[in-house]
Amino acid sequence: MTSRHAAADQLLDVIATTRSIRRYRADDIPDADLADMLFAATRAPNPGNRQATRFVVLGRSASARRARRLLGDAYRSAWARKADGEQWWAGSGSDPTSRKARAGRAMQHFVESFETIPVIVLVCALMRLDPPPKHSLQMTPVFEWGSVFPACQNLLLAARALGYGGTISGWHESAETQLREELSIPDDVAISAIVTLGRPAGSHGPVRRRPLDEVVFLDRWDEPPSWALDPPGSLLRGGTMVTDGAAPGPEHTR
Amino acid sequence: MTSRHAAADQLLDVIATTRSIRRYRADDIPDADLADMLFAATRAPNPGNRQATRFVVLGRSASARRARRLLGDAYRSAWARKADGEQWWAGSGSDPTSRKARAGRAMQHFVESFETIPVIVLVCALMRLDPPPKHSLQMTPVFEWGSVFPACQNLLLAARALGYGGTISGWHESAETQLREELSIPDDVAISAIVTLGRPAGSHGPVRRRPLDEVVFLDRWDEPPSWALDPPGSLLRGGTMVTDGAAPGPEHTR
Repeated sequence: MTSRHAAADQLLDVIATTRSIRRYRADDIPDADLADMLFAATRAPNPGNRQATRFVVLGRSASARRARRLLGDAYRSAWARKADGEQWWAGSGSDPTSRKARAGRAMQHFVESFETIPVIVLVCALMRLDPPPKHSLQMTPVFEWGSVFPACQNLLLAARALGYGGTISGWHESAETQLREELSIPDDVAISAIVTLGRPAGSHGPVRRRPLDEVVFLDRWDEPPSWALDPPGSLLRGGTMVTDGAAPGPEHTR
Repeated sequence: MTSRHAAADQLLDVIATTRSIRRYRADDIPDADLADMLFAATRAPNPGNRQATRFVVLGRSASARRARRLLGDAYRSAWARKADGEQWWAGSGSDPTSRKARAGRAMQHFVESFETIPVIVLVCALMRLDPPPKHSLQMTPVFEWGSVFPACQNLLLAARALGYGGTISGWHESAETQLREELSIPDDVAISAIVTLGRPAGSHGPVRRRPLDEVVFLDRWDEPPSWALDPPGSLLRGGTMVTDGAAPGPEHTR
């Protein structure tokens, strides 16, 4: 990053190294750290200041253990369907050293050990307006996603800053009815996303992405500005590292 | 925040003071800062690693000026409809010192000066899968929101860290057809959200929210854990400040 002041560089560094973590060490997360992460989550923006996002944390009670089991089963089914539907282990996935195969093994491990993930947070949204508006505005799903996902992102960034890692997922659909019953979640509350958290078993980031000049345009679609340069040290697709702030040619980035 | 290490505290502080900023000073944003903010945006998670989020930045070209005008008109109409539909200026809104009236004036200023906002970013999503999957998985809107909103949040946090402010909005619907034409945005690209950015005319945060024990539950709906305590210095609804880490009674927080 261009150096301006330390706080900005640290924040940008946390953002650049917050990647999806799906393998966790067994360590529990201390309550004070959980409180800080959830505090950060509640500081996300929320359309119309409804503050309708809720967080159900699954700990170690008997009820939480049953909920974890329901989720684990749902996640294993969803991953099996996806891996099968996309023929995950064919093509490049058949080479065990490929990125695809490694990603597949991480996912397999994630769903197989779902019940033991240190912390599972159900990010929920009240689907009613409270208090009800005098002139009923229909709440759109988009409206709620605009609260739920920024909250998830704050949760992951705060986790990263405190030395944890996690990922956003949403494979709970087949377990939803039983999950509501087990956790007493009312019918008018959406279980919108699931964030899993723990001490990473491997290392954090950096995140690897398309070069900036493929995704940032100025004043017209597909026309990147001259300043759309990845900072030195960025990892691009294919594993190329930017060394001098200049975007490499496309041959390096696929 | 409980003090552990400086980087974590700084990140949590940036998160806690990133609030929606709708009044901007006229200063342009230097390209290097814009590049850092957009780099941060691209580091957001994205389901299935599709990397389908795109950012169209509106600068000062003739085409951008026409797009700004289209957006300004759309935003003014949308706000007028909302203020009218919700009778914004009745009830507590009729007291010019109320929070509602102040929020309304900020919104009025936002839409009236929309064309002059230093930077407007259209956050877009490719609605096709690229490359097309062999076994067609239907892409759901949720899938895309899971990329778009974390990217918007990273953009706002990076802006805050660099001394800027902004807000996520989405009142462009009535201008969408003309906007696509003006900016050559293809039909299969969704204009998902709009992030406005600039140097804040007022001060940043802190963000004011419900107390943590109203929104964080452990193992069962509506049962807050003992550790769901707002850190000292948090602003709760109604303007109460937490002084000792203990959540105040409900009479202070409505």
